[in-house]
Amino acid sequence: MDFRLVDLSADEIAAQLAVVEPLTESVRALIDAVIRTEVPDDDLDDARRRIDAVTASLRAAQKPGSYGVPFTRDFTGMPWGNAAVGVRNAIAPPLRVDHHDDGTATARVRLGAAYEGPAGLVHGGISAMLLDQMLGEAASVGNGTPCFTGTLTVKYLRPTPLGDVDLRARTTGSEGRKVFVRAELCDADGPTVTAEGIMVSPRNLPSPDQIAKLRAATAADHDA
Amino acid sequence: MDFRLVDLSADEIAAQLAVVEPLTESVRALIDAVIRTEVPDDDLDDARRRIDAVTASLRAAQKPGSYGVPFTRDFTGMPWGNAAVGVRNAIAPPLRVDHHDDGTATARVRLGAAYEGPAGLVHGGISAMLLDQMLGEAASVGNGTPCFTGTLTVKYLRPTPLGDVDLRARTTGSEGRKVFVRAELCDADGPTVTAEGIMVSPRNLPSPDQIAKLRAATAADHDA
Repeated sequence: MDFRLVDLSADEIAAQLAVVEPLTESVRALIDAVIRTEVPDDDLDDARRRIDAVTASLRAAQKPGSYGVPFTRDFTGMPWGNAAVGVRNAIAPPLRVDHHDDGTATARVRLGAAYEGPAGLVHGGISAMLLDQMLGEAASVGNGTPCFTGTLTVKYLRPTPLGDVDLRARTTGSEGRKVFVRAELCDADGPTVTAEGIMVSPRNLPSPDQIAKLRAATAADHDA
Repeated sequence: MDFRLVDLSADEIAAQLAVVEPLTESVRALIDAVIRTEVPDDDLDDARRRIDAVTASLRAAQKPGSYGVPFTRDFTGMPWGNAAVGVRNAIAPPLRVDHHDDGTATARVRLGAAYEGPAGLVHGGISAMLLDQMLGEAASVGNGTPCFTGTLTVKYLRPTPLGDVDLRARTTGSEGRKVFVRAELCDADGPTVTAEGIMVSPRNLPSPDQIAKLRAATAADHDA
């Protein structure tokens, strides 16, 4: 596991997000437009050339490989490249997950044309992906630390129309490094897809106790 | 189900693909660049404005809603907006699935930064999505007709590094409208994730016999 630390304050992270989130949102709109556009071929070719020029300008300086999951100095994960929740990843809807005091995790997200499988319906694999993320969120300590999926079982009760969906997940037990979790995806009429997962914490993950100590030590450094 | 027919010849479809596929590929490169770029904030803002301009030009004429799954006059599906295989959908890697005479379906795909979960590794939900698509491909009659997933069970044997992966799927039996399918996702060292699925054919789907008759009738029309 990569536990690279980045020395950024909460303000610095907020400043980065203020630039990066609108950019990613623009790319999401572009993905949708490319799927649905009916402009003539010459306009499509022109769009391609203009997109390539933007990409070249962004590649003037770039991280090698992938974004990874850096952690801030108070051990908050920054999974900004994540395929489900990444604020820099236009593939992610993105899920914005809320963690509640009762241990549940919830999210509401609008799934547009880019998430289609059968005509007008959410791709079954996209539902599985979002539910997998929710299972991991409920199983994690709630700080963005990635959790590995051991087994994922997804049951499709009925088709999910494209549009707004709600997701919720909660743990149902644990055994050593294994955490048992359930989740569901709902449209306005109730659950359409349910999932059960056995999630596994990475072997070399700092424990919640260790994370609390790291955070206290960092806070003490800053107060000193 | 939407069985909208489009009256396009094979040549016309090839001509559309020749324009659309490079455009979608350019958007995929842009998604990657936005995740990994380290250019200054002003350049990011400039990129956003240029992307918004391209999106506006594409939206000058567009389909309402989603792309759907139109069928050609010989009943070949065009799932071009599909989240896993869609040639117009930059979220799709895309999977290019080969159907073999022995009934298996295979695909090889490169998963880059946009498919990340834990640092450097494929998101477990992305593996589930691709396997779900492969299960559907093996269960379908091989003409792009969408198949609904009933139950999907995914087992993660070990982490999958980002990079090239191979997928294969095959049916193991059927019962009425249910088709039982297995699939696996492999890196260079062998399987990393396996899946079992119970896939369900849509109730109002033309049967393979009906499709064969439709195709024969269309061919006869054109010969006439």
